[in-house]
Amino acid sequence: MIDLPLQIVIAICVLALLLAAILTRDLLSQDQGTPKMREVADAIRVGAEAFIRRQYSTIAVLAIVLALVIFAVYFLTGQQGLAISTAAAFIVGATCSAVAGVVAMFIAVRTNIRTAAAAQTSDGKALDFSFRGGAISGLIITSMSLLGVSLTYVALGADPQHTPFVIVGFGFGASFVALFAQLGGGIYTKAADVGADLVGKVEAGIPEDDVRNPATIADLVGDNVGDCAGRGADLFESTAAENIGAMILGVALFSVFGANGVLFPIVMCAFGLLASMIGILCVRGKDGANPMDAMNMGYYITAVISAVFLFFGVQWLLNAPGVAWMYFVAAGFIGIALSVAFLKVTEYYTDHRFRPVQEIADASETGAATNIITGFSVGLETTAIPAILIGISLLLSYWCGIQTGVPNGGLYGTAVATIGMLMVCAYVLTMDTFGPIADNAGGIVEMSQAPEEVRKRMDKLDAAGNTTKALTKGYAIGSASLAVFLLFNAYMADIAKLTGKAFDVVNLASVPVFVGALLGAMLVFLFASLAVRAVSKTAQSVIDAVRIQFKDPGILAGDRKPDYAAVIDITTQGALKNMVLPGILVIGFPVIIGITMKYEALAGFLMVGTITGILLALILNNSGGAWDNAKKYIETGAHGGKRSEAHKAAVVGDTIGDPFKDTAGPSLHVLIKLLATLTLVLAPLFI
Amino acid sequence: MIDLPLQIVIAICVLALLLAAILTRDLLSQDQGTPKMREVADAIRVGAEAFIRRQYSTIAVLAIVLALVIFAVYFLTGQQGLAISTAAAFIVGATCSAVAGVVAMFIAVRTNIRTAAAAQTSDGKALDFSFRGGAISGLIITSMSLLGVSLTYVALGADPQHTPFVIVGFGFGASFVALFAQLGGGIYTKAADVGADLVGKVEAGIPEDDVRNPATIADLVGDNVGDCAGRGADLFESTAAENIGAMILGVALFSVFGANGVLFPIVMCAFGLLASMIGILCVRGKDGANPMDAMNMGYYITAVISAVFLFFGVQWLLNAPGVAWMYFVAAGFIGIALSVAFLKVTEYYTDHRFRPVQEIADASETGAATNIITGFSVGLETTAIPAILIGISLLLSYWCGIQTGVPNGGLYGTAVATIGMLMVCAYVLTMDTFGPIADNAGGIVEMSQAPEEVRKRMDKLDAAGNTTKALTKGYAIGSASLAVFLLFNAYMADIAKLTGKAFDVVNLASVPVFVGALLGAMLVFLFASLAVRAVSKTAQSVIDAVRIQFKDPGILAGDRKPDYAAVIDITTQGALKNMVLPGILVIGFPVIIGITMKYEALAGFLMVGTITGILLALILNNSGGAWDNAKKYIETGAHGGKRSEAHKAAVVGDTIGDPFKDTAGPSLHVLIKLLATLTLVLAPLFI
Repeated sequence: MIDLPLQIVIAICVLALLLAAILTRDLLSQDQGTPKMREVADAIRVGAEAFIRRQYSTIAVLAIVLALVIFAVYFLTGQQGLAISTAAAFIVGATCSAVAGVVAMFIAVRTNIRTAAAAQTSDGKALDFSFRGGAISGLIITSMSLLGVSLTYVALGADPQHTPFVIVGFGFGASFVALFAQLGGGIYTKAADVGADLVGKVEAGIPEDDVRNPATIADLVGDNVGDCAGRGADLFESTAAENIGAMILGVALFSVFGANGVLFPIVMCAFGLLASMIGILCVRGKDGANPMDAMNMGYYITAVISAVFLFFGVQWLLNAPGVAWMYFVAAGFIGIALSVAFLKVTEYYTDHRFRPVQEIADASETGAATNIITGFSVGLETTAIPAILIGISLLLSYWCGIQTGVPNGGLYGTAVATIGMLMVCAYVLTMDTFGPIADNAGGIVEMSQAPEEVRKRMDKLDAAGNTTKALTKGYAIGSASLAVFLLFNAYMADIAKLTGKAFDVVNLASVPVFVGALLGAMLVFLFASLAVRAVSKTAQSVIDAVRIQFKDPGILAGDRKPDYAAVIDITTQGALKNMVLPGILVIGFPVIIGITMKYEALAGFLMVGTITGILLALILNNSGGAWDNAKKYIETGAHGGKRSEAHKAAVVGDTIGDPFKDTAGPSLHVLIKLLATLTLVLAPLFI
Repeated sequence: MIDLPLQIVIAICVLALLLAAILTRDLLSQDQGTPKMREVADAIRVGAEAFIRRQYSTIAVLAIVLALVIFAVYFLTGQQGLAISTAAAFIVGATCSAVAGVVAMFIAVRTNIRTAAAAQTSDGKALDFSFRGGAISGLIITSMSLLGVSLTYVALGADPQHTPFVIVGFGFGASFVALFAQLGGGIYTKAADVGADLVGKVEAGIPEDDVRNPATIADLVGDNVGDCAGRGADLFESTAAENIGAMILGVALFSVFGANGVLFPIVMCAFGLLASMIGILCVRGKDGANPMDAMNMGYYITAVISAVFLFFGVQWLLNAPGVAWMYFVAAGFIGIALSVAFLKVTEYYTDHRFRPVQEIADASETGAATNIITGFSVGLETTAIPAILIGISLLLSYWCGIQTGVPNGGLYGTAVATIGMLMVCAYVLTMDTFGPIADNAGGIVEMSQAPEEVRKRMDKLDAAGNTTKALTKGYAIGSASLAVFLLFNAYMADIAKLTGKAFDVVNLASVPVFVGALLGAMLVFLFASLAVRAVSKTAQSVIDAVRIQFKDPGILAGDRKPDYAAVIDITTQGALKNMVLPGILVIGFPVIIGITMKYEALAGFLMVGTITGILLALILNNSGGAWDNAKKYIETGAHGGKRSEAHKAAVVGDTIGDPFKDTAGPSLHVLIKLLATLTLVLAPLFI
């Protein structure tokens, strides 16, 4: 018999999947626009599906190898009982993540054309379609993650004191797939983008998304595989890993709350999913209105309903005698507030209405060098407020946890804050996927040479998509930074369970731990280096391929159709080849550290690597976003507008920001959680 | 009566000062070239002296305020006995550092003209002069540091068990001055450089160091105030802080070695100074030879003699019954080997003969954006090998220390390794100061419109100077990273002494320590942001000032002399104004963390801030050096040579690298040691 809380989780997930199905049916029945539009959309769809197929085949091979390693680790360290279940959980997690990514892609490449078609008549309808396309992904990904964790928990025995330690395999599987999905997709999207821009805009002097550029379709494919499938996998594993981490912390409170403390995280996430469904249904496009208004409204509705649900959820599940449960509610509110604060800070640093982007635009007047120096300086600066916010949230929610009177409640307080932040996840994912769909629809409109008014409608939606993409990256890094702290503690609980000795000190003053910490920070920089380099290498192949096609004068004159598929193929090959080395490095290196220097040094490695990863991701995401918007701001006419010297300088900054914000930055989100789940699962190796 | 070891230290320092005096007398008696050369050199000298005067006046005010704060901290925390002596040691340290900086400047602005004059006839002689100019600075700075520490130690009672804790004030004073000297000088030099390049080379299309550019003299002044005075102050405080840190660790071994363990660090540094003197005297310029050959030879001689001295020094001072002292010798050798390894790694990453710079030059063909993406990726990559080297050195020297059989000898092993690395300091400082002198002499030759052959001679020397500057930055960061570990432990010993409780655990798994660590890493990024921004702000003023002068057609035509002094004045004002905020921030922020979150969280702050600082400094220094040399490589004719599109792209990369490698990077070296000495001195506030 399944516990009531689990029944509720499953029921909400089924409800969410049902809503997703209804939205999908409704969406697929919509008009698909002109034949020209369909032609473009078909090319995108075929390219994206081909990439995803090849990418996941590569990932599958790597995953199977790793599953065998996990099995061997457990088997050879004398834990035969856990060997099969952990390896199986890993495979299930990996599979669920892959399915979520594929579904997100499937919907995105079918929504873009319908959004473009709707834009022929109404911008409100175009928003509705693209937003609902995002919602389908958001609902499916979140409910798959919750269902996956819940059902794996049930399948592995549903013993609240032991099962949480076994389902870490599920989280690791999800992280593993997310790493490659985000990295490969990120390399693909930015190599195509940078390559298309450099050879098209800069060398041949033709506009962005011009039909004559053989790399345009690859660029549009990139939005789907990088932003949709990549970020989908990222947030899938976020919810999975963070739920599992919180469940492990819940084990320590078994004597107080029984199974409720363990199940609380997934129940609250399910409640958050319900809140997101309400928020999503409240969003209605209106012709002539700013699309951000409707989406922001939906977000606030989701946040407020989540807060209400949190209150009742805590009262129901964490309300044991002698427990001041209101403090847990407060901790949860801190998490919800942090999610709002992160959105606001990201907005400040990447929106042209504020000082940072203005400064970059000003600096563009003296050329590319000053544009980049200023943008880099802004990027470094963006670490300050988020770090302080994270610090305050951790300290406050820890303090709240202690005030509840539960023994060792402090850590559980931070877990509740993380859960609070994660409750709005499905809604955020909706906003996030909306971005690339709108971007793609804009590309389809552009390439099908639709009338000016249709393009204008799409431009507005596209601009909103850029904003939501920047905001959700802020959210992703914010939630990751709260979550990792509880994952550390899950790791330490796991090690303590394995060794039978308390493990609650990671002494940074000991030489091995300090060295581990130094190497952890280094790994983050090295990984970012490899990710950025992979983009520039792959972009170089794209440039070479386009140059060959441009040698045919018929293509540039528009008489002959360029060979889009050839460029798509080269980008696919480059992205897949270049994602493997960084991926293997970040998995292999911590394992070597752990085996040679043991678990405490590895904890130092993990924690300081995480700190560096959070801050570097902020730098990369926000500087990239700021450069992008400084260019867009100049394009509205500021500092001489398009074709001015300032604009040329701003284009250089934007190009540099591309691999920062869409490849290295988001891959770092995944990396820091991967490191945590990896150490959890492979813990027996490190003792 | 002063102990024999101290007598030896003082004797060697006096000897070094004597040698410096002889070299100075000899140098000042040399020919000062043509009247045109003298005119340029005089303008540089006047500008540099004016800046230094105003800079040190500002620093003096800040230092006096801080001395009063230190006095108050000790007085009000009930340690009246230490209040006066710590504040006085701070003032003495600050003064000695200022004097060392001023002397380095004084020599540099007099050596440049004599080097330029010598280049009229012989490149060997030009090398001799510029290298000896560097040697004078190197000898004076190192011996002042050693004398300062030794005499303060004697003046404060020479009690080996207590005095080391009091002389930390000296180290803090030195760090404090170094921070502002490096930051202000770094802002000055790069603002002038970037400003001169952007408005001269890019806008007006005139060559570098052209007499018509009103910012040229300011640019040449910058080499002196940034590279000479700045790095002089940096390495002054390195030797001071690291000696004091090692002496504090020596206190713990008093029962084994008596005073010898405390005095060992300064004795070995004095021996190293002696070895450097021999190395310096071995360098002889030869016409037509590669200047790097002679300097490298001198370096290896210094390293080998240092190793021999180390052997005898350990045998003499650390040879107690039952101590396997050979392991201390091994630890010292590890430090010397690490200094060589760091030079090699830096060479690999910044020399055009190797893959990284080649890659950047290749990427320049597709424009500025790919040049910068590749350079940034190289910068991130350069953290890997140094971090691994540091890790191995720390672990090995710690292990060696344990093998000696001395109780808690592991930490002292790392101290001996640090000392080994520092022994060659005077020689490295010589090479370092040689760079800007050669650079300046090149500028004088260029601006005095000397014949082509003279310019060619200077170009060769200038190129060598660029190499030595990059190498010594590698050395500086390497020695800093070993040193900070012992400074942490000194801090922990200090706290233990103050609280009377053991303090040997910094638990990163506790929430406040983790938050402290996060904020420490953040501070490093924020500081780098402010340093970079200060350069771009000041450069903007320079550009504006030059543009006004260029409105006079007589100046660009060469009919009228530009107003150099006006630009110098604006750069001075900008640099001084913009150095204050970052300086106050990095002092104020850790104090706030320490007071609110107490000493253990502050230790986390310090350690993770240091790790991040080391790695970020590597990124900034090496990417800057690589961009610089990629540009120089293209100028030799590769990828189309000067005036090609690749060259234009490489110039953008070089400009971005300027504030990275000469302002933010070197300021971070100082920052990480300042944090350590600051926490040591203000420790009573944090308990």
